[in-house]
Amino acid sequence: MTDGFIGAALTKRYGTDYELPPEIGNSTIELLIRHRTVRHFVPCELPDDELQLIVAAAQSASTSANFQFASIVQVEDPARRDRLADLAGNQQLVRDAAVFFVWVADWARSVSVAREHGLPTDGAEYLDSTISSIVDVALSAQNAAVAAESLGYGVTFVGALRNNVDAVCDELGLPAWTFPVFGLAIGLPDPNDPADIKPRFSQDVVLHKETYRSLDESGLQDYSERIGKYYSEQERPADWVLDRLAWRIGSSEGLHGRHRMRESFQRQGFPIR
Amino acid sequence: MTDGFIGAALTKRYGTDYELPPEIGNSTIELLIRHRTVRHFVPCELPDDELQLIVAAAQSASTSANFQFASIVQVEDPARRDRLADLAGNQQLVRDAAVFFVWVADWARSVSVAREHGLPTDGAEYLDSTISSIVDVALSAQNAAVAAESLGYGVTFVGALRNNVDAVCDELGLPAWTFPVFGLAIGLPDPNDPADIKPRFSQDVVLHKETYRSLDESGLQDYSERIGKYYSEQERPADWVLDRLAWRIGSSEGLHGRHRMRESFQRQGFPIR
Repeated sequence: MTDGFIGAALTKRYGTDYELPPEIGNSTIELLIRHRTVRHFVPCELPDDELQLIVAAAQSASTSANFQFASIVQVEDPARRDRLADLAGNQQLVRDAAVFFVWVADWARSVSVAREHGLPTDGAEYLDSTISSIVDVALSAQNAAVAAESLGYGVTFVGALRNNVDAVCDELGLPAWTFPVFGLAIGLPDPNDPADIKPRFSQDVVLHKETYRSLDESGLQDYSERIGKYYSEQERPADWVLDRLAWRIGSSEGLHGRHRMRESFQRQGFPIR
Repeated sequence: MTDGFIGAALTKRYGTDYELPPEIGNSTIELLIRHRTVRHFVPCELPDDELQLIVAAAQSASTSANFQFASIVQVEDPARRDRLADLAGNQQLVRDAAVFFVWVADWARSVSVAREHGLPTDGAEYLDSTISSIVDVALSAQNAAVAAESLGYGVTFVGALRNNVDAVCDELGLPAWTFPVFGLAIGLPDPNDPADIKPRFSQDVVLHKETYRSLDESGLQDYSERIGKYYSEQERPADWVLDRLAWRIGSSEGLHGRHRMRESFQRQGFPIR
């Protein structure tokens, strides 16, 4: 029972009125569906007990064959935060968050254990190792995000750390066989942060039955209108296709340096074979 | 307030007695920390309302610049389930789950929209596009998993779908610019399923302060003992390093076909530039 909030949140996500039987849903689902990305934090400190629970939630996510490929680097030093903020497109929230985690895909732990036991490590070198470890990282980070939100904090994923990923590796002393995937900022949302529940594609666009079905014109049109309205309400008017997508997809310029990711993988000895 | 269950779950995760102040934590955190991977399902059906909420939770996760790179293929046809089970190392749970989702990293939607608008798509071709989309997929799938567990179901991630990923692509009609990352089985856990809360590395192994710190011998020793005890209790005795890790990391054989992932990326036109 969630006082109709889930229905209201679904209406914001999908644009159509949702009527749910009142017995459907629960407070966890309400929390998941009302997620919004926080762009502005006000000062606060997280008690150690809460931090411990957030990390425990992260580690409790499923992990590929229990290999636990996720590592977290917690950055508190203001000078290091400042440098990371600069590296991530000068995002002030990296400086202001109560906690800033860099989430690292970590094969170094497994490789070093294997080597200490005199075991071969040829099987680590393949692209699938990268996939497994990035999946581990994201599953655990999402659990951390949900745990933090359940405690009343807001969160932001900072993919822009990959804009200058070599410098991030140097800053955090990341050894071979590790790779930073994104940052996660956790803190108290500024009450004036305007971000709201953002519209998403309708469910029939992303949910395919039995086999894949390509996007049709009506699904795109519906979404472009809804997200365009949202951007206008946020006073950042933009056309989702012609501004946002066109910029990201058009050329390497839209990647803000991330078009060199392959070289960075090679530099870190991270698997792409 | 969670009746001390969080402390008990943390003790299973970390092996040391945890005493938490009773006011710390909440039912969502309890749910996250008590996660276990279900290997056996009993027959059940998910009501459409619940399925809709699970998908909405998935779509509500953060997504890279709101591009929503996650697609889901829901497979219900028993014959197709059977073929997918075979492709994923003959896992019966793929057949038995109430719902089986294949989670797809999907650049096809964005690329097709751009092309319809006559826009260039050179920026999509880089390895970072793969990272962004796999992260999107895993964040959304973890939300789906948490939502399903909050409704009383159990879940299993099926990474073994990548063992025969080309055949999975063919089975689901996945076009260029898409890639299946894993399956997610959702269903009613068999009450006789013995899986329990699995031990993880202690927090100081995975949580690094300011800069990365390599695994030391004591952290490994502590974990090897705890997970060894767990495997014995589960009547699947194994040495975590010499059996599990050695097999996965030793050679391409431990990848069950996944050492060909790079060729499969090329076959699907998925970005690794």
